[in-house]
Amino acid sequence: MPSELPKSVVVLGATGAVGREVLLLLARRGVPSERVRALASDRSVGMILPYGNGVVIAEATRAEAFSNVGLAIFAASAELSREWAPVAMRAGAVVVDNSSAFRMSPDVALVVPEINPEEATRGGHSPRIIANPNCSTIILLVALQALRTRFGVRAIDVATYQAVSGAGLEAIEELRVQARAEGQPSDLPRKVFREPCAFNVFSHDSAVSLDDGLNGEERKVIDESRKIWNDLALRVTPTCVRVPVVRAHTMAVTVQLERAAAEADVRDALQGASCVTVVDDRANNAFPTPLKATSRDDVLVGRIRPDPGAARDSAGRTDRYCLLISSDQLRKGAATNAVQIGELIGLL
Amino acid sequence: MPSELPKSVVVLGATGAVGREVLLLLARRGVPSERVRALASDRSVGMILPYGNGVVIAEATRAEAFSNVGLAIFAASAELSREWAPVAMRAGAVVVDNSSAFRMSPDVALVVPEINPEEATRGGHSPRIIANPNCSTIILLVALQALRTRFGVRAIDVATYQAVSGAGLEAIEELRVQARAEGQPSDLPRKVFREPCAFNVFSHDSAVSLDDGLNGEERKVIDESRKIWNDLALRVTPTCVRVPVVRAHTMAVTVQLERAAAEADVRDALQGASCVTVVDDRANNAFPTPLKATSRDDVLVGRIRPDPGAARDSAGRTDRYCLLISSDQLRKGAATNAVQIGELIGLL
Repeated sequence: MPSELPKSVVVLGATGAVGREVLLLLARRGVPSERVRALASDRSVGMILPYGNGVVIAEATRAEAFSNVGLAIFAASAELSREWAPVAMRAGAVVVDNSSAFRMSPDVALVVPEINPEEATRGGHSPRIIANPNCSTIILLVALQALRTRFGVRAIDVATYQAVSGAGLEAIEELRVQARAEGQPSDLPRKVFREPCAFNVFSHDSAVSLDDGLNGEERKVIDESRKIWNDLALRVTPTCVRVPVVRAHTMAVTVQLERAAAEADVRDALQGASCVTVVDDRANNAFPTPLKATSRDDVLVGRIRPDPGAARDSAGRTDRYCLLISSDQLRKGAATNAVQIGELIGLL
Repeated sequence: MPSELPKSVVVLGATGAVGREVLLLLARRGVPSERVRALASDRSVGMILPYGNGVVIAEATRAEAFSNVGLAIFAASAELSREWAPVAMRAGAVVVDNSSAFRMSPDVALVVPEINPEEATRGGHSPRIIANPNCSTIILLVALQALRTRFGVRAIDVATYQAVSGAGLEAIEELRVQARAEGQPSDLPRKVFREPCAFNVFSHDSAVSLDDGLNGEERKVIDESRKIWNDLALRVTPTCVRVPVVRAHTMAVTVQLERAAAEADVRDALQGASCVTVVDDRANNAFPTPLKATSRDDVLVGRIRPDPGAARDSAGRTDRYCLLISSDQLRKGAATNAVQIGELIGLL
């Protein structure tokens, strides 16, 4: 008796920066191209997209594209997620949504597999939305999860160095064109960013609240961290900044632990942490960088050191540590996390 | 009766990144080129340097070059400062030294004119060394000085986004050559920085202490801030990072005040601060950037907001504020501060 036809995997926004990474990861995991439906906007229909050793062809985003779907990974705008999530669910899909549309809805799970996998698996294969967190939030919390488990985390002060590709493929092109102008990017036309992005850094391009002065990215890091860790008292102090990097976000972090810890124990916790690789060679000044993190699925952590401004107890322990972390925000910050969720619930 | 011949101004390291800015500023202040002696290494002797509408010619660094000197601005290495400061002082000069050689000597003043001018003027025209602080330290403290005066400062958490030109003119060339390679800078030969500097960010290139994990730049920010503010209890938590920017350093700062303050009062203090320009337009997402700060002599301050992780009192006041600052480290971080010290002591 032939086995049931395996359900298809829909990738919405397949031609975008995150969508292309999702296709790469699905192919690596051996999902045959016949099972994959790469949906795109009308203007990208027919685009040939690399898929393993072969290709998939972008097709129009239509209700019919969701027939016999098991998993639908959404990697487009919040608007498109709001429009198409109900369609996908009616067709029987579990939607793993990379947009911000549903993340803070009380009835939607916000999942990082290394942190709260039970939030994803509860519900089995029944149609629902599982939200993929903001890229900076995923990277930050994955880096700190082992410290939280072992010592507790009370507060996080984080300054980000975010790659332009967080704003899409067009932003990469904008950076390249400006970089070619060699230090005179101010005069070039700008489409994606208000500020020149080559040879410059600037406060994150998301809208700034006139009320509290936080930009959208900072608000996401605060709210999503509290939801994922289920800790409304968590204190988060973010400053989100773009830098002229193609991909991978870097962060300077000061974490305040619940309990004072020795540096050796902090280091030990990080070395054993899931999805974390410690890159911390003081003698050679070799630490995480976005170029090292590019196209990797893990989070690089280094510059592990006690906060020089913090008090130590008689055993030399302190409750404040500094870290520098880098991770590819298109991978663990987006595509990798979404594909892991698909695996977790058994739909890949 | 002819007046006494005005004493000359020596610039040691005149062909370097900071030395050229010193010449620009001396010319702007109307110091005639005949009074200026531009000293350089032997390989740069004879180099023609722009000076106002004219030029000055680089000459060899020899004891004779210090004859009839009043002010000697040193903008070279710590080694050269150690070698030539005694020579300059024997010739009667006040040495304003931009290197780290003497900054932490207990008998040497470490001066930011907006903060501790009395440290510079004590001593009149008598030969001595006055140290110009580290660039990051100057920029950080100038931005915070008005808050310190009005509310007190207990602790500073700062992540830097430092321009490559802090490592000299060669570093600018290295960035440009790598940027031309369009995203593949990893394969290019590197002379100044161990890590690729285009399309990348990396932990500051100064040596890292195997003991406490701090790099040299971070150690300077801590020690020099405490000396300039005369506050050994000041808590400073720095993470120093290079970014692909030609000039001007940016910093994400969280400051803890001694006394809780209303946001309006923090803003008011910064708006009235000496050498500070507030750039803080939330509606248009317009804040300090290194491109905006380039070739300016002030410190741009923006993203003024209460720390979202801090407690507020019943009047809405808090003791923790976040800021984003940018300033040209070759100017206020080095040349401008040195020239201001020369003016302060009446030798320009």
